[in-house]
Amino acid sequence: MRTEISRRAFLATTTATLGAVASSPGSLPAPSQVSVPPERLLAPHRLLGAPRRQYGDRSPYEKSVRYFKPSSTPGTGASRTPLQDLHGIITPSSLHFERHHAGVPQIDPSHHELLIHGLVERPLIFTMKDILRLPPVSHVHFLECAGNTASDQLGQPGVDPQMSHGLLSCSEWTGVSLRTLLEDVGVKPKARWLVAEGVDASRLSRSLPLEKALDDVIVAYGQNGEALRPEQGYPLRLVVPGWEGNVNIKWLGRIDLVDQPYMTRDEAAFYTDLMPNGLARMFTFVMEAKSVITRPAGGQHLDGAGFYEIEGMAWSGRGRITRVEISTDDGRSWRDAELNSLVLPKAVTRFRLPWRWDGSEVSLQSRCTDETGYTQPTREELVSVRGLNGTDHYNGIKAWYVHRDGKVTHV
Amino acid sequence: MRTEISRRAFLATTTATLGAVASSPGSLPAPSQVSVPPERLLAPHRLLGAPRRQYGDRSPYEKSVRYFKPSSTPGTGASRTPLQDLHGIITPSSLHFERHHAGVPQIDPSHHELLIHGLVERPLIFTMKDILRLPPVSHVHFLECAGNTASDQLGQPGVDPQMSHGLLSCSEWTGVSLRTLLEDVGVKPKARWLVAEGVDASRLSRSLPLEKALDDVIVAYGQNGEALRPEQGYPLRLVVPGWEGNVNIKWLGRIDLVDQPYMTRDEAAFYTDLMPNGLARMFTFVMEAKSVITRPAGGQHLDGAGFYEIEGMAWSGRGRITRVEISTDDGRSWRDAELNSLVLPKAVTRFRLPWRWDGSEVSLQSRCTDETGYTQPTREELVSVRGLNGTDHYNGIKAWYVHRDGKVTHV
Repeated sequence: MRTEISRRAFLATTTATLGAVASSPGSLPAPSQVSVPPERLLAPHRLLGAPRRQYGDRSPYEKSVRYFKPSSTPGTGASRTPLQDLHGIITPSSLHFERHHAGVPQIDPSHHELLIHGLVERPLIFTMKDILRLPPVSHVHFLECAGNTASDQLGQPGVDPQMSHGLLSCSEWTGVSLRTLLEDVGVKPKARWLVAEGVDASRLSRSLPLEKALDDVIVAYGQNGEALRPEQGYPLRLVVPGWEGNVNIKWLGRIDLVDQPYMTRDEAAFYTDLMPNGLARMFTFVMEAKSVITRPAGGQHLDGAGFYEIEGMAWSGRGRITRVEISTDDGRSWRDAELNSLVLPKAVTRFRLPWRWDGSEVSLQSRCTDETGYTQPTREELVSVRGLNGTDHYNGIKAWYVHRDGKVTHV
Repeated sequence: MRTEISRRAFLATTTATLGAVASSPGSLPAPSQVSVPPERLLAPHRLLGAPRRQYGDRSPYEKSVRYFKPSSTPGTGASRTPLQDLHGIITPSSLHFERHHAGVPQIDPSHHELLIHGLVERPLIFTMKDILRLPPVSHVHFLECAGNTASDQLGQPGVDPQMSHGLLSCSEWTGVSLRTLLEDVGVKPKARWLVAEGVDASRLSRSLPLEKALDDVIVAYGQNGEALRPEQGYPLRLVVPGWEGNVNIKWLGRIDLVDQPYMTRDEAAFYTDLMPNGLARMFTFVMEAKSVITRPAGGQHLDGAGFYEIEGMAWSGRGRITRVEISTDDGRSWRDAELNSLVLPKAVTRFRLPWRWDGSEVSLQSRCTDETGYTQPTREELVSVRGLNGTDHYNGIKAWYVHRDGKVTHV
């Protein structure tokens, strides 16, 4: 077929001219001029396609999946979002990272209730129907496991963005402001904290300061336009913007207003940061500014010297990302990347920088700054202060290494 | 079981006190105080849940689907988004409305190409790999079929938001700016329009003015974080922000730079607006400001007098929504609703207004204004100018009717 011949001719042309394109900074790594045979203009697809569907699915050519190790205890553990395959700031709900302690309960929403009690004027039970009648709010926020990138802290970095940073996702969450519910029950003056509890078999519970609960916490029932996915807490979860994933209680069934933190299992035995001096930081809720280059990144391959877009994601639990810088020379010099998506508080922000690879060995690093002025530190800076005992809340600068053969690796 | 008893007691309490809540304007339609039996605090779910999954799916309790009539020609037609079931501004990709003329082709992206030719300096063929190397952009935009709400124009309004306004969806689209590609091929001075063509069996093609092509058009490969869905043009489509859905060419294979519009089938035989004087408006691309109340709306039922949130969506092809007003008295008076989501240009915006229903027969209407100052007209205003020959680009104010028994209907 002529279209095939044309295709081969095109590829040959592209390869042959990439060097020339590469030597002209500012131009694009686009294919070169080809003569278009008239046959190319004819329709190659003539078959009637598939009919409409009630509920769609992705193309069978798309194979990206969440990663998890097979386990003899499948009810507990995590699965990781394939960040290198994502586009934009929204994580498809089907690829949102998971973390369960007793598996994913299947809950009939018509029987689900949220009890708010403790130091309140009027303990109340809300059905899903009650909650859906309250004023809704919708916000885009990232969710990140406190232990995300722990392997990088330990000097055993993940081989690709999914393995290094994949306990991170970002969704549009819809629900009721927790403040609305708390105003309804009437919080007593003695209340300073609350304990939120899920109804899954692990009864995961965490203490949250009242100040945050009255700020921007959402009791969410919607995710990316539809109901929460089961593994994200269907039918009801806490969304605690910018704070470690573990406190975003899923399958939320109970909120108890209390006068002090209750030292639940996941804040006494876990989710504390053991410092070099043997003392532990507790209630270190905020996920600090972090970024990762997703292309080119570990596990990928560059087709020879030339122009590439460096792309990635940045986020901060303290607000908006204001700046992302990229170094292609082991951190000696840094260039500002463009923020090329919506820039929302406590949400994933996309960045990009055009880059000409000269074919030599280089490292690619990104560091971000948030609206508080805080800049992502190096691993060395972090480890010098925090040591290696604790593995939560690590947010050091990440490097990928491009080799002469075009392979990109994590070491 | 005591929890069951408690549940029943709670329901009885709620029903009994709703009247009292309703008579206190400003308070919430929340459940009333209940005594919480100690047994209620015990865990009701004790079973280990489901394990992790590579690619998730929604809860089996969620049944919302796209609507379409069974057809003897399943390759052509539309399916409608269930707007009344959505949360936030993102439409789940699985529920994005569809419109096909020859079914959904199954395209292998490794063989897909985009040819740009005609009045250009360098005709080029881009593979998907080429396109993915170019600088990406991500924007949230609505897509709406020109014929959306035609039934309302004809005085045969859809029975619910899905049937009246369901040829509307909103996604985060990621791709390459068409401007980037056009700069790469070098547009010749004589070029004024382009013709974009899909590779499906219908070869759907439309002419677009160059000015728009150089403004904000995206050659999109990503939708809500992952690859485009097949029914949305996988692997490549045009996203023409704010313009009628038909020009957002799916399965995009070719762009031909030309000196005038080419009067293709879908701009000569269709997608023109036949006016009362027998002349037709052509190339009326922009989807003007429109809004719809999604709750309470046709097909729903109110559980007695009391407080409800009026919720809905507004959008404009000319930019941001700046105001939404709601009338509950047949359009005699209007109150400003709150815009309770991101307010983005050419994107769905959410609105809400707390409302106390006194149990009488009322109509609920919304009208929106965009940043150009344009306000959505009444049906009478529109029909007096445009007549009833054409059924595209109708954007009249929509009314739902609440009856004494709580039923909400379309007439």
